[in-house]
Amino acid sequence: MTGKGKSGMPKSTPLKKYNKKSEYSYTLGAFPTIELLKNKPEHVLRVMFHSDMNSDRQAEIIHELCKKNRIQCEVQDRLVEKLRDKENCYVIGVFEKYTGILQADQNHLVLVNPSDMGNIGTIIRTSIGFSVHNLAIIEPAVDIFNPKVVRASMGALFRIRFQHFDSFEAYRKQYGREHALYPFMLTGAVPLQTYVPDPVKHFSLIFGNEATGLPEEFAEVGQSILIENSDEVDSLNLSIAVGCGLYEFTKKRR
Amino acid sequence: MTGKGKSGMPKSTPLKKYNKKSEYSYTLGAFPTIELLKNKPEHVLRVMFHSDMNSDRQAEIIHELCKKNRIQCEVQDRLVEKLRDKENCYVIGVFEKYTGILQADQNHLVLVNPSDMGNIGTIIRTSIGFSVHNLAIIEPAVDIFNPKVVRASMGALFRIRFQHFDSFEAYRKQYGREHALYPFMLTGAVPLQTYVPDPVKHFSLIFGNEATGLPEEFAEVGQSILIENSDEVDSLNLSIAVGCGLYEFTKKRR
Repeated sequence: MTGKGKSGMPKSTPLKKYNKKSEYSYTLGAFPTIELLKNKPEHVLRVMFHSDMNSDRQAEIIHELCKKNRIQCEVQDRLVEKLRDKENCYVIGVFEKYTGILQADQNHLVLVNPSDMGNIGTIIRTSIGFSVHNLAIIEPAVDIFNPKVVRASMGALFRIRFQHFDSFEAYRKQYGREHALYPFMLTGAVPLQTYVPDPVKHFSLIFGNEATGLPEEFAEVGQSILIENSDEVDSLNLSIAVGCGLYEFTKKRR
Repeated sequence: MTGKGKSGMPKSTPLKKYNKKSEYSYTLGAFPTIELLKNKPEHVLRVMFHSDMNSDRQAEIIHELCKKNRIQCEVQDRLVEKLRDKENCYVIGVFEKYTGILQADQNHLVLVNPSDMGNIGTIIRTSIGFSVHNLAIIEPAVDIFNPKVVRASMGALFRIRFQHFDSFEAYRKQYGREHALYPFMLTGAVPLQTYVPDPVKHFSLIFGNEATGLPEEFAEVGQSILIENSDEVDSLNLSIAVGCGLYEFTKKRR
């Protein structure tokens, strides 16, 4: 007889290197594991340590959080060595993937077809930094549960609500009426630097893919915004553009 | 007898994989090679193609720029294969390293001990995007001529002036009188969001290392600035913080 863990995962299931199709993913390292345990304990399947773990303080925090949430927590050197991608990773959290729905009465960030794992991790962290806790992801898109995204977000992934949509139209149908939609485009009609946003409605800041930006038809979905930059660069890096957009819109909402 | 190329580099010198101590570095790929040829042709030693190069348009631009500047330009499959780090790189520029001095009558960006190659590349590109063309680098710091930095900057490295300093004091001695100094710190005295900068002096925006930020004593060197963020993240990513700082300060200078 095999015992079953949370979510029906048999405890003896052999854990494999992360794969997009897995039903579970990993936090590699102490910092994201602590963020996971603090914010999404209900999705944690187990935590594994390596006996070389050298931070007593972090180990203690993790043990306490596991105990409090009745999460299995063991030394498993071989498994940690198999799953980690860097030698200096001594603790791994295993969690089941989850989904959610956005809050209609909050500001949104909308990413259309994001493709870079490091970028989206940084963007999630930045969004939390500017108190925007709702993220819409329009497919096709990078797998946000990939451990590289989790790490690039420094665990902020576990603090954001996100919802996947098959198309922008699907997002718009669900949330477009209550939100003021702002597509960020190189051909945007008004500069971010001088624009004064709708003072009443919540905002949806919409950004395109790293390489291609938003298609021209997005100019029609709302007030298109341009971040003015010198003609010496084609455009700003996506995560920088999102950072400036979030900075400016949250500033004006004070 | 061995002929000598520019800067005394014997044409027959065997090129090696990039090393911090080399007197020359590389642009890997067409985009940064074109930026190099457009902006720093006087430092280019040679350009090498791979016969698999598949963009006729980019090849043509590179050939024209080489011809105009009398730069050696040849198909060298084996050398390209040896020096590149990704299979889809079909052209490599070889350039001698150079230094410069900053313009005293322009705005500056000052990075104290930057350590991440991707970050500094993105930061250089962002700085050019917001028309800040002078970068001070306080040692110890990442090697900005590393081909990874060149690529992360998308060649914007060749559009920025930079100068290395052994200490912040050395920078301050040379430029601190004419510039208003703004150290960005988590303990900054005024929020970026509401601060109105000195309307007369040129600015120096000063940022610390990715992991540690600026030491406390920087609060004394000028008007310290805080980018307000939610307490759910420790701090913003360095490149995002620099992006917001440059965005806000260049906006106020219109």
